[in-house]
Amino acid sequence: MDNDTILIDGLEYVNWNRDLLEKAHAGGLTAIHATLVYWEDTKESFEKIDHWDNLIQSNSDILVHVKKSSDIMEAKKSNKIGIIYGFQNSAPIANDIFLVEQFFNKGLRFMQLTYNNQTPLAGGCYEKNDSGISRFGEQVIEEMNRLGMIVDLSHAGRQTCLDAINFSKKPVTISHANPNFFHQSIRNIDDEVFKKLSNKDGFIGLNIYPYHLKNHGDCLNRHL
Amino acid sequence: MDNDTILIDGLEYVNWNRDLLEKAHAGGLTAIHATLVYWEDTKESFEKIDHWDNLIQSNSDILVHVKKSSDIMEAKKSNKIGIIYGFQNSAPIANDIFLVEQFFNKGLRFMQLTYNNQTPLAGGCYEKNDSGISRFGEQVIEEMNRLGMIVDLSHAGRQTCLDAINFSKKPVTISHANPNFFHQSIRNIDDEVFKKLSNKDGFIGLNIYPYHLKNHGDCLNRHL
Repeated sequence: MDNDTILIDGLEYVNWNRDLLEKAHAGGLTAIHATLVYWEDTKESFEKIDHWDNLIQSNSDILVHVKKSSDIMEAKKSNKIGIIYGFQNSAPIANDIFLVEQFFNKGLRFMQLTYNNQTPLAGGCYEKNDSGISRFGEQVIEEMNRLGMIVDLSHAGRQTCLDAINFSKKPVTISHANPNFFHQSIRNIDDEVFKKLSNKDGFIGLNIYPYHLKNHGDCLNRHL
Repeated sequence: MDNDTILIDGLEYVNWNRDLLEKAHAGGLTAIHATLVYWEDTKESFEKIDHWDNLIQSNSDILVHVKKSSDIMEAKKSNKIGIIYGFQNSAPIANDIFLVEQFFNKGLRFMQLTYNNQTPLAGGCYEKNDSGISRFGEQVIEEMNRLGMIVDLSHAGRQTCLDAINFSKKPVTISHANPNFFHQSIRNIDDEVFKKLSNKDGFIGLNIYPYHLKNHGDCLNRHL
């Protein structure tokens, strides 16, 4: 890898320790989009942010919390891994739109609207009926757009993806999924969603999770 | 009113004080289904229960907390108003099914699945797309059935009403709404829902809220 290469791990959930962090650093990662929470409630989510703040602080020779694109370039220059905070669910904000800004101010930069199941904002990919984006969901997307927090549609239902791509004034992402034309799975994405995402300058992170690559018998029941 | 008459106020939300409670008592009410919360979160909802426990305690000459049908008959005999605890939303349980039993153990006996807007359980009557009952919603209805907590479909969307009537193993209620054939309103109920509700031994509480009785110009924007 040459010195200019930027290598970002688009989503990671790991029980980190110093050894693993050193391996990631030696492997040349520039930044990691780290999953802080899935189902945690508001209080637990603020606690997870404290935990990550402490993890970065106690490994500050190789880690730095990044909050904007230029921070990633700075992380590269200083030979550290930039950590991007993300939530894989909207459970932390419950019904309180003001929490979006409170979490943003703590450094949160990605939030999924759903994690498989329905939320007050949107429909999950495992629901029988996907509601699409709800009234509250539209308001939260507006708030995320205003602040500069990225809407992540991984684990959302198809209609929710289409609604959010259409409604958001800023590009959205599907941080971890694969195309259905490559491997059919409830968590993977069909062509229409891909095309609309790309037409709005969105991006997708491809996924090496085995159940999104290949049939393993019960793959449709695997949720990650 | 003769001595055997039972008179239950099917839903009430009032800033109660001693004077109002005495008037309700003098008016001959046997029981009141009291709204404890709308949008409150878990912690705030437990606090509201504490508040109501205190209110009943400090007016125990005329109030008693009722938790089963026979308690209402006992309240009548002892010349007190029986107070039935209800939530007009499922926000208090958030995503935690174990909270249903915790609230039940505190005396909660009615819970709405939604209050106009989408929740993790169901679709609200003001949503553009009503999801019906979600995966989590079905589990919560099973839990409410098991415990003996009444599913209240007021403020739910039409599909959510039909799904819940069909899915619940015990009768459900629409505690406060009127028929659409009488007055058309987003909060009122159409014939099909009424018929299915009655076929499953459900009940409806009619409503004297003005915007559910008659057009007042902007009635469709009134949410109560």
